[in-house]
Amino acid sequence: MTKRLEGKRVLVTQADDYMGPAIIDMFSKHGAEIIEDRSDLTVPDAAAKAVSDAGHVDVLMANLAADARFGVPILETDQEAWSSMFDIMVHPLHRLTQAVLPQMIERRKGKIIVVGSATGLRGMAGVTAYSSARHAQVGYIRSTALEVAQFNVQLNLIAQNWVENPAYFPPEFVATPEFQEVFKTVPMPRLATPEEDALFALFLASDESDFFVGQAIPFSGGWVQ
Amino acid sequence: MTKRLEGKRVLVTQADDYMGPAIIDMFSKHGAEIIEDRSDLTVPDAAAKAVSDAGHVDVLMANLAADARFGVPILETDQEAWSSMFDIMVHPLHRLTQAVLPQMIERRKGKIIVVGSATGLRGMAGVTAYSSARHAQVGYIRSTALEVAQFNVQLNLIAQNWVENPAYFPPEFVATPEFQEVFKTVPMPRLATPEEDALFALFLASDESDFFVGQAIPFSGGWVQ
Amino acid sequence: MTKRLEGKRVLVTQADDYMGPAIIDMFSKHGAEIIEDRSDLTVPDAAAKAVSDAGHVDVLMANLAADARFGVPILETDQEAWSSMFDIMVHPLHRLTQAVLPQMIERRKGKIIVVGSATGLRGMAGVTAYSSARHAQVGYIRSTALEVAQFNVQLNLIAQNWVENPAYFPPEFVATPEFQEVFKTVPMPRLATPEEDALFALFLASDESDFFVGQAIPFSGGWVQ
Amino acid sequence: MTKRLEGKRVLVTQADDYMGPAIIDMFSKHGAEIIEDRSDLTVPDAAAKAVSDAGHVDVLMANLAADARFGVPILETDQEAWSSMFDIMVHPLHRLTQAVLPQMIERRKGKIIVVGSATGLRGMAGVTAYSSARHAQVGYIRSTALEVAQFNVQLNLIAQNWVENPAYFPPEFVATPEFQEVFKTVPMPRLATPEEDALFALFLASDESDFFVGQAIPFSGGWVQ
Repeated sequence: MTKRLEGKRVLVTQADDYMGPAIIDMFSKHGAEIIEDRSDLTVPDAAAKAVSDAGHVDVLMANLAADARFGVPILETDQEAWSSMFDIMVHPLHRLTQAVLPQMIERRKGKIIVVGSATGLRGMAGVTAYSSARHAQVGYIRSTALEVAQFNVQLNLIAQNWVENPAYFPPEFVATPEFQEVFKTVPMPRLATPEEDALFALFLASDESDFFVGQAIPFSGGWVQ
Repeated sequence: MTKRLEGKRVLVTQADDYMGPAIIDMFSKHGAEIIEDRSDLTVPDAAAKAVSDAGHVDVLMANLAADARFGVPILETDQEAWSSMFDIMVHPLHRLTQAVLPQMIERRKGKIIVVGSATGLRGMAGVTAYSSARHAQVGYIRSTALEVAQFNVQLNLIAQNWVENPAYFPPEFVATPEFQEVFKTVPMPRLATPEEDALFALFLASDESDFFVGQAIPFSGGWVQ
Repeated sequence: MTKRLEGKRVLVTQADDYMGPAIIDMFSKHGAEIIEDRSDLTVPDAAAKAVSDAGHVDVLMANLAADARFGVPILETDQEAWSSMFDIMVHPLHRLTQAVLPQMIERRKGKIIVVGSATGLRGMAGVTAYSSARHAQVGYIRSTALEVAQFNVQLNLIAQNWVENPAYFPPEFVATPEFQEVFKTVPMPRLATPEEDALFALFLASDESDFFVGQAIPFSGGWVQ
Repeated sequence: MTKRLEGKRVLVTQADDYMGPAIIDMFSKHGAEIIEDRSDLTVPDAAAKAVSDAGHVDVLMANLAADARFGVPILETDQEAWSSMFDIMVHPLHRLTQAVLPQMIERRKGKIIVVGSATGLRGMAGVTAYSSARHAQVGYIRSTALEVAQFNVQLNLIAQNWVENPAYFPPEFVATPEFQEVFKTVPMPRLATPEEDALFALFLASDESDFFVGQAIPFSGGWVQ
């Protein structure tokens, strides 16, 4: 069997956060050449610089993640907490896309994969700001993908939830009765491993998924079907 | 038959824009007392002031609309055009909700209806910024509605498209071959009238729809089913 | 205010079952002339006869309901239980539609409303046969509506769940811990009344909803958004 | 790289039809041991016999396909054409599942993948009977998957459309203006190859997708997002 990302140059943003480490590990095993970006993408020029520094990019892994605090009532979500969700997860997505699309369109080949959230497809109490920003990401890839499908560039999104992750699901949180009550709504009786999630990312980043156009695909143990 | 909004105080934002006039006309006929707001809600304090000035609000019609220019390629959507979509349609929704929810929760009764867009549920080429912001609105009402359903407060959204509207569908645009080509994707062979749209808003604003929780309901002639 | 169904002839199938009584009561108050059908529509010729006997039909309320037993494991769903779901809820829908469409197309006006289920949009453990048949109804109205929208005939579906109903939610079942556990997944902390459901049916059956084409709209207290 | 289906026994129904040949070819390359079934599954006992003959089944590829004739108006869809869709694509799915589930549940491992259709998620004029039956398949996997997720058995569905296929899209049909008009609604400007489709099936059949529960995932060039 050939390696599934042989010869691909993959730019991974927020390389140390969210699914960054698992994706880098998996993609490296499958032959990708990884460019790890760790810049603060809330700075307006940072996206253009990250792409420019990366040079040739076959696949952009838009791994954009804010620190989500669950269980924040809407009345306690102040302006700063609200804005930060869009500043971190939404606006950089547009800037990254604008920076990387031209070379992909020119080559008539390229992929942008957003490591997003199932809360971008379904409501969840206590995370309104996060969920709104994740919905905006879904809208972004749906509409942009329609525009660039003709150039053989695909944008898709991993609508994940319930993936083992020290930031969102630390063991001490998972052990609480509050979490266990919410977790009853998840059909699969376990969290996903980061490796499983990275295997799905691998599929979407590879040439195996060229016919997927602007899809936000749930990866959530059946929480969203 | 009784009037369907008898005794309801309804706050309508951007009263002169988008569906404002049609809603005000329809709701007035059905007995509502309308509070028309015309303030610039991109100003951070304007939402709180609009609600405070309105006093008792049974129904908030969050009629938030940016000037959408259709057919703007993603590479030509500059930072200002991008941000304005969120500044006009998304951030004020959070501020309005925060301002009006406490009185609704206290009374254990209230409704927030967003006059949104079907592009918040489905991608559309050439309107990525608009579509992303409209998706964010959908996420907002889905998640917030789950939090306040227990207090008998409902948030729902009209996911409309292809409604007669001088701003989005002026007759000279409707007459173009470009529009007619796109319009082929709409199953219903005509635009909706503003009155039809307002009749749906009337249903969602009235006590007839208390069991609807966080729904973005398409009103688009079958463009989204 | 005028009566909302003044002058409409409405055929209601299975008039004594499911939402039949509530719909008949509500629609009568709003001026409709009701034709109540109680024939066994699993008999192949019964649908054509019901429509023929009814004569002029402005609105068909396809109220088709099987006795759903919840909590039936898939391995215990025998062939007879399986088939009955389609025999009662799906195949008669096609026969009724074929019988009533010609007069509606000829008049360039008409509505077919299916009183369906939210389990036609979302999976639910223990009701696979029921859910599959309800999904088939959703597919039916989505596709047929696209075909007849050009003739000003609309098909839409009420995707309901958690509505007070002696057949599906008898008080003794609602009182059980099993039900209460499942009911935690419903954001709205109460069942809907039949009257609320009938008010939604009224909206969809009236001329107020002519721009809705092939939609399965959730009415489920947020269980499906 | 290891072969992705090494050691898996995969039962493929209607082995000569629809995606059967492409799946058998792809899965064989990836190390699967294929059991090809060619029995007429409309015969009630055939499903049980196919599974019994197969013995140990790790993955069931429920490749069930009727001859779809596109463009059949609803009024011309007679009872026989209507029933055949359910007889071929829906009822055998239940019988196959009942036959194969017990061994999967006992081993706490197994997968059932339905090779379905995007018309099971979205309406399409002229194919109502087909679309209704495909929707029923979607409901089937959504509900059943919720029931057996606890046993580490996954059911998922490929909601495909616009895949090269001599039965549905023969070259002479693709060349017609009628097809080209409909094809304008597909964002991707080409049909998928059977190999691409089989690569997606490979992902869903492998251990890489254990966290997917009851999902109907579009594979349609963006026709459904």
